Amino acid sequence: MQQPISMRTIERLSRYRRVLTDPSRQGVSYIFSHTLAALVQVTPSQVRRDIMGLGCAGNPTRGYRVEELLAAIATVVDDDQPQPVILVGIGKLGSALLNFFRGHRPNLQVVAAFDNNPEKVNRIYQGVRCYTLEDLPRIVAAERVSAAILAVPATAAQEAANQVVFAGVCGILNFAPAPLFLPAHVHVESIDLTTALEKVLFHTRHHALSSVVLNPR
Amino acid sequence: MQQPISMRTIERLSRYRRVLTDPSRQGVSYIFSHTLAALVQVTPSQVRRDIMGLGCAGNPTRGYRVEELLAAIATVVDDDQPQPVILVGIGKLGSALLNFFRGHRPNLQVVAAFDNNPEKVNRIYQGVRCYTLEDLPRIVAAERVSAAILAVPATAAQEAANQVVFAGVCGILNFAPAPLFLPAHVHVESIDLTTALEKVLFHTRHHALSSVVLNPR
Repeated sequence: MQQPISMRTIERLSRYRRVLTDPSRQGVSYIFSHTLAALVQVTPSQVRRDIMGLGCAGNPTRGYRVEELLAAIATVVDDDQPQPVILVGIGKLGSALLNFFRGHRPNLQVVAAFDNNPEKVNRIYQGVRCYTLEDLPRIVAAERVSAAILAVPATAAQEAANQVVFAGVCGILNFAPAPLFLPAHVHVESIDLTTALEKVLFHTRHHALSSVVLNPR
Repeated sequence: MQQPISMRTIERLSRYRRVLTDPSRQGVSYIFSHTLAALVQVTPSQVRRDIMGLGCAGNPTRGYRVEELLAAIATVVDDDQPQPVILVGIGKLGSALLNFFRGHRPNLQVVAAFDNNPEKVNRIYQGVRCYTLEDLPRIVAAERVSAAILAVPATAAQEAANQVVFAGVCGILNFAPAPLFLPAHVHVESIDLTTALEKVLFHTRHHALSSVVLNPR
């Protein structure tokens, strides 16, 4: 694929793959676009456009060959080389994320963690050494790191982001509940776990209250 | 506040609080709407509308009193009662989330975990017992649970969601990369960690490639 691929396309391809590689679908060799569409919650025509973009052709009576789709998705989404990633902030959330992402994808490798707490520096967390942020430029250069997972408190986020970007990182998965102001070449994906849970809890409380009023039993 | 509050408002209030309670701002007693606006990345007039909705008045020369704002936000966002939450799926991600959310907010309490893996059932994870999904209705009723964190594989997600909703849960924080089809009274917030990271990695690779082409040094 020579034309530029949008982030939305990458997002859909990533979801198609997750659905196609789910253990419960082992033994399923072919899939129809409308089945995949329903599982990923996009339109069948969107699925067909994406698959056409991958250069795969379907069989009208059996659908698309799963193995062929997966190989084509990997060509676009994955890198052949290991992708070194750093984790900044090894508190409660940072440790949890390290546990989740370590070994999560064959080519993904968390090569170093960073924290300014002297009690954490030089300790090994799940096989990953923790450094001070002063070591960022050296390690980012040496390990050819281009992506960082940011799990620092909100007020430390901008400064930490500046440091990783200055060191050469151009992609950040940000878990700090703070907006980041960064150069245009840096791609940031932000995930705010606390706000998401508070929204759920607010709804449940509100819903519970209105049920009480409407059905007082 | 008597009028219904939208989820977007709750989201902003939750973010205001995070910014206002950040340890680095200890000792800051007053804040201006435009400062808070810049930190949360919304417009100053939005901040002023939200604060007016909370019933707080600002001082033109000093801004809003932080303590008063926090008390007002808590009245809307928090419950006085402990909010019992269950965790469904105690794999790698589930354990990480349990570690993150346990003790994260004073009133939030993870009261039980559920997993169908017999090796996990009846074990205690960070002080939380794991049950089979058959025990869902009994525990949800006994503990008056209305919210669940779903950390199961994509293909198990719909079935698990059906079970928790049937047991009485009406709010779900879903980490399974699968769409959930549920009754309208159920509020679902979905977070897809893997897709977010894949987008970041794709960008970094793509960015690195284009730099190589444009600046071949």
